[in-house]
Amino acid sequence: MTPEEFRRHGYAAIDWIADYYERLETFPVLSQAKPGDLRAALPPHPPEYGEPFEQVLADLDSLILPGITHWQHPSFFAYFPANASGPAILGDLLASGLGVQGMLWATSPAATELETHVLDWLAELLDLPARFRSDGPGGGVIQHSASDAALVAVLAALHRVSGGRTERGGVGAERYAVYTCAHTHSSVEKACRIAGLGADALRKLDVDPETMTARPDDLRALLDADRAAGITPALVVASVGATGTGAVDPVRALATAAREAGAWVHVDAAWAGVAAVAPEFRYLNDGLELADSYVTNPHKWLLTNFDCDAFWVADRAPLLGALSILPEYLRNSATESGAVTDYRDWHVPLGRRFRALKLWSVLRWYGAEGLRNHIRGHVALAQEFASWVAADERFELAAAPQLALVTFRLAAGDDATLELMRRVNESGALYLTHTVVGGAVALRFAIGSPQTEHRHVAAAWHALQASAP
Amino acid sequence: MTPEEFRRHGYAAIDWIADYYERLETFPVLSQAKPGDLRAALPPHPPEYGEPFEQVLADLDSLILPGITHWQHPSFFAYFPANASGPAILGDLLASGLGVQGMLWATSPAATELETHVLDWLAELLDLPARFRSDGPGGGVIQHSASDAALVAVLAALHRVSGGRTERGGVGAERYAVYTCAHTHSSVEKACRIAGLGADALRKLDVDPETMTARPDDLRALLDADRAAGITPALVVASVGATGTGAVDPVRALATAAREAGAWVHVDAAWAGVAAVAPEFRYLNDGLELADSYVTNPHKWLLTNFDCDAFWVADRAPLLGALSILPEYLRNSATESGAVTDYRDWHVPLGRRFRALKLWSVLRWYGAEGLRNHIRGHVALAQEFASWVAADERFELAAAPQLALVTFRLAAGDDATLELMRRVNESGALYLTHTVVGGAVALRFAIGSPQTEHRHVAAAWHALQASAP
Repeated sequence: MTPEEFRRHGYAAIDWIADYYERLETFPVLSQAKPGDLRAALPPHPPEYGEPFEQVLADLDSLILPGITHWQHPSFFAYFPANASGPAILGDLLASGLGVQGMLWATSPAATELETHVLDWLAELLDLPARFRSDGPGGGVIQHSASDAALVAVLAALHRVSGGRTERGGVGAERYAVYTCAHTHSSVEKACRIAGLGADALRKLDVDPETMTARPDDLRALLDADRAAGITPALVVASVGATGTGAVDPVRALATAAREAGAWVHVDAAWAGVAAVAPEFRYLNDGLELADSYVTNPHKWLLTNFDCDAFWVADRAPLLGALSILPEYLRNSATESGAVTDYRDWHVPLGRRFRALKLWSVLRWYGAEGLRNHIRGHVALAQEFASWVAADERFELAAAPQLALVTFRLAAGDDATLELMRRVNESGALYLTHTVVGGAVALRFAIGSPQTEHRHVAAAWHALQASAP
Repeated sequence: MTPEEFRRHGYAAIDWIADYYERLETFPVLSQAKPGDLRAALPPHPPEYGEPFEQVLADLDSLILPGITHWQHPSFFAYFPANASGPAILGDLLASGLGVQGMLWATSPAATELETHVLDWLAELLDLPARFRSDGPGGGVIQHSASDAALVAVLAALHRVSGGRTERGGVGAERYAVYTCAHTHSSVEKACRIAGLGADALRKLDVDPETMTARPDDLRALLDADRAAGITPALVVASVGATGTGAVDPVRALATAAREAGAWVHVDAAWAGVAAVAPEFRYLNDGLELADSYVTNPHKWLLTNFDCDAFWVADRAPLLGALSILPEYLRNSATESGAVTDYRDWHVPLGRRFRALKLWSVLRWYGAEGLRNHIRGHVALAQEFASWVAADERFELAAAPQLALVTFRLAAGDDATLELMRRVNESGALYLTHTVVGGAVALRFAIGSPQTEHRHVAAAWHALQASAP
């Protein structure tokens, strides 16, 4: 494709996206496709000769859109949001155009330095402890996802607690344990399995039915029991904004117990953490000065397209110890000088895209003020929604609302609640998903699309009321 | 950013990229930035108020470009290529615009089905064994990188060889071994460390100085010795197009030995594999019908922007066994019907971008014919470059040229060869990197940029000749 062809088709692609956002509300939120619909419509064999780009755009409308669940729809209230925004889309477009691979500082110094810089900026915007900034032994990096971040936290923890022995010897016959609350995201169990510890190494603390969070006393008891049995506590993971109900673990107390036992403290605030751009939500940061690593995802609720997972460590040495290997073909004078960061040693993949560009673009377009407004607007809408739930006797709140997440259910029980969800989702008018709270089904109403306005939340509530028995 | 603002700034971003490709040759290939240059030029604090997008584009020119090593430059001959192309950039742009998260089939059926479909297409284009297609127990998935693919191959291998015991018990006191050639990419050692086996579990087969590949007899001897010592062979990794010299391991013989020992066979053809779009290079596929998993990267040499790593398994059950966890908040009727694929269970992350869109766009824009021409053009240029090297008595080939990679050195030895590299790289006229072959330094001349023409290769050779002592 020549630069002139690119210009022409590029304008058309930009127009397609602008038009998509203008007509977003005309689509059913949840795709109504059946398994195999798209594959049956696609040619069984790849084309022998090139086709015009116009054909791809036409097929996007006729074949792909019916199979899309519209995550950017203003009435998408499922899971957690996956924010896109104009400046993020365009920042990522520019990164695609440059097509650089920033595995080493030397392979594009700006890709590395901009990433370090915007993660320092983001740490400042969120008022994170200074130990996560890059001017000391710590620093930030963009990971692919919070699951990848949980995995590297496990690896750094094992490296530190083993005194580096896992690097050559693996986990071996040594027994390690990882501790987290039962409400913590499944990524922690997945990380334990990937890291060779197995699911049995994960101790799941019961959820306190009062606070919906982990109890520090339970953690202390487990740590003591394991140490008495010759098992080494490697890592404690605390959740700030757990997936089910948005619960915020008592990080300070959990971290204190973990540190006394010599374990690494990882705080997973994948969804909620970015809310700390607004000072009134900085209670989310309580105890972070005791954490060894911290993760929050601008790609969830801070207007930055997937993938953009911000991960910080207070001390990068154990992370690099766990992950760095230097084959001959990657040796270079900048790396050997020790004056630069090579981000390939901070995560699983070697190759890396210039993802900092989209985060830079977002932080500059919105500014701190715009980011605060984005978060505050959603939280206010959630509070209003929760008040409506509380006022309708057919409904009940399943847990205290957290930020922009409301969990609720029908008083009539699980079957009625699931049937209500099925009905509204199939209508296409909105999309929400469920969880289990205190042994009973609950629906999660997660507000987060940049397109969501008061009228969409009100319409969703009316649809829920109209479908409720 | 409103749709109308997006349209305006989007056109500007498209223009910036088109202009960038038009002036690409005016830049030094290797960035001449010094550590800290960019950070010193950036504001120390994030902006309080939003800034115009024009400012981001202006800073891209003035601040970012001096710190870019231009991977798309026609005179970029370093590492392996990281291909970008118009249809890939635009396919990825459309994916950003849609902003869907395809962790489950239900969260955007088209994202999953298009991915399965284009990986079947790609398997057909490369003439891979039918067992990797999705109509049987196998199938393909897009991974973030070949390092991620190596990791999941280790995990699937451990799951299978342990009869599923690693899922709960981890690697434990059991001793497992992984086998590969010393020239294999460092990602395999990294995967062993991440998976809890440690670097000591990796057996590195010596490189045969004649063929530059692993010797099946050596593998057999190691497998036998390990089994006699009570160590379980888990995985054998064969390289097709190793990073240093592009060497192609004898996959059939290695895989036969591996299978006899019950080990998983993973074939890493990250760079070279895509060359099989042209029938004359299908010798690269020899023995693949014995492999359990196979990886090649369209993001290296098949015109598709990073990240797009194509990974296939012959049997998806051990992969899913190693990686799937189903928490309540991800339960849905499509998953429970068993009629759909949920790609979250095929890799480390949970969230996933709609990456199939860019690969679809590339396969359609170029067609099989265009892809063959892309590969053939580079291979022909490399053959000509190798003939020039062979004809100049100051130079020598360090290994037989492989596809579009030529490894060579100065007869005057390591210091002279490294000094030559330093000189041409600092000139900005071209960029190439080094490796070690047979104990001596060698330079790697890897042709792969879609922009590279005969005149760029000729100019690079003239620059090398002019700088050689």
